[in-house]
Amino acid sequence: MTREHFVDPTMIHHFWDDSLDPILEVESGDVVHYDLLVAGDGQVKPGDTYSDVSFDFDTIYNLSGPVAVAGAEVGQTLCVEVLELQHGDWGWSAILPGMGILPDDFPVGYLRTFDLRRRDSAQLTNDIEIPLRPFMGTMGVPPRAGEKLSPFPPHLGGGNIDNRYLTAGSRLYLPVLRPRALFSCGDPHAVQGDGEVCVTALEAPLQGSLRFTLQPRRIATPAFVSGRNDEPAGPAYCTMGIAPDLMEGCRLATRSMIDWLVDGCALSPEDAYILCSLAGRLRILEVVDAGMWNVAMCMPLAILPESVVREA
Amino acid sequence: MTREHFVDPTMIHHFWDDSLDPILEVESGDVVHYDLLVAGDGQVKPGDTYSDVSFDFDTIYNLSGPVAVAGAEVGQTLCVEVLELQHGDWGWSAILPGMGILPDDFPVGYLRTFDLRRRDSAQLTNDIEIPLRPFMGTMGVPPRAGEKLSPFPPHLGGGNIDNRYLTAGSRLYLPVLRPRALFSCGDPHAVQGDGEVCVTALEAPLQGSLRFTLQPRRIATPAFVSGRNDEPAGPAYCTMGIAPDLMEGCRLATRSMIDWLVDGCALSPEDAYILCSLAGRLRILEVVDAGMWNVAMCMPLAILPESVVREA
Repeated sequence: MTREHFVDPTMIHHFWDDSLDPILEVESGDVVHYDLLVAGDGQVKPGDTYSDVSFDFDTIYNLSGPVAVAGAEVGQTLCVEVLELQHGDWGWSAILPGMGILPDDFPVGYLRTFDLRRRDSAQLTNDIEIPLRPFMGTMGVPPRAGEKLSPFPPHLGGGNIDNRYLTAGSRLYLPVLRPRALFSCGDPHAVQGDGEVCVTALEAPLQGSLRFTLQPRRIATPAFVSGRNDEPAGPAYCTMGIAPDLMEGCRLATRSMIDWLVDGCALSPEDAYILCSLAGRLRILEVVDAGMWNVAMCMPLAILPESVVREA
Repeated sequence: MTREHFVDPTMIHHFWDDSLDPILEVESGDVVHYDLLVAGDGQVKPGDTYSDVSFDFDTIYNLSGPVAVAGAEVGQTLCVEVLELQHGDWGWSAILPGMGILPDDFPVGYLRTFDLRRRDSAQLTNDIEIPLRPFMGTMGVPPRAGEKLSPFPPHLGGGNIDNRYLTAGSRLYLPVLRPRALFSCGDPHAVQGDGEVCVTALEAPLQGSLRFTLQPRRIATPAFVSGRNDEPAGPAYCTMGIAPDLMEGCRLATRSMIDWLVDGCALSPEDAYILCSLAGRLRILEVVDAGMWNVAMCMPLAILPESVVREA
């Protein structure tokens, strides 16, 4: 029988830090229900414009956790299944001076809020509506011992990966880098494009349920299977290249995909590389997070053998 | 009545060069039927392995053209509609030492050929088949006067853009940079992923039909509307950022998309930037072409006003 847990939404923290006391310990296979605070909760309110808000970047991200996974050991993989996600009634998006990929073009701050009570889309103008695809912008584990790390840049343990493919039905694979994994999540998004170019998504409160499962395999980079969204012909297995340079991110993600194809599909490294060139998709997940960018190499499951798809 | 023209497949050239004599002059609205030679035609043969081939990179690309468009003036836009594409009976893919994004991981050359007589997919192994999505890897116009440019790096006039979204049903928009445009195409591909990471696609002969139409608008970068493929919820309007750095490519493509949204959708620049962040998709089209990479910012037409979609 699946054990279920509910997380207190007020139990938040603001750093990746393996010395934090877990707020919960779960067994492999357990489900945890979250109620995530929007980024900037208490700082931005519905109807605000930029001049109404004093941003406090030290507390803008509200990470829920850490959740300890009993028995998780360094070198294993934590599978995080995204079971269900439901965004809240409102959200916001902003241009923040000095951030985003075009800081020189947009030196002036700008903020707008959205009414999301109409559940399936956000209205930008009278004739532009954006379909919503909620996901958690941040999911991860602390990467190193004894360090208190900013929540903004993503890292080997995931974190602020801003991966829009992690909608309901997706699975995220994280390397366990500290004993008991110590998973946290936050930065909920009602929708985001590939890139998150202006530095914010549609930031919105989110209720969600995750199932945690330990796997014995070792992975070199975080990976995922994309969920229900508007993507090509069903889900894909994808590897993430998190690096301060997009080309290096491309290399990391492609290498990690080749490893997976060689292990799982009994391909030679050469044929795996060619398969990446012919059918893989390099996507820029985010290019705005505190100097660490995230590139995905995605391989559609539809072209892979059944036995591999079952294991993915 | 549409005028139709057939191009002689043996009329090829190997440089972007505005001094070449056009092989054909067409009027705006005309259709041209092509029969494109595979890259490396006469160098690679069905069944070859790497040691069977002597690559001659000076003549590996066979560009068909140039086609002059009567009345085309610098500052206009050439719309190239991809009407139909049919790949040939075989193709090849290779790892070429020193090229691709992982040259240190794959220092040894490797080549394989594919039987494409089974029309809809290419068999990589007994249990991996890749669905085919043919397109022309190279379509473009010479960017500058009096220069003879290599066919490998893409440029402001397009060229070797390796854009897998230019399947049948797509439209490519190129800036007219020299009088009469002087369009050429080649580098036919039966299928390619986003990135073309190993440096080759599935290179294959291709028959195709293009319609050329002049538009009075001026565009800052090449752009396109994606065609029939396995992409999200219908076609997208996309801008291309061609640059020697992926981040710079992201910036160019996003700026060009913001310009288009501001002009066409009566959005403020701020809301256009936010729309790119919430619903745009940054995709790496190619990251292997002689030091010039190609990034697309794609906006699904489904979320844009009808009047804009009609014009796109």
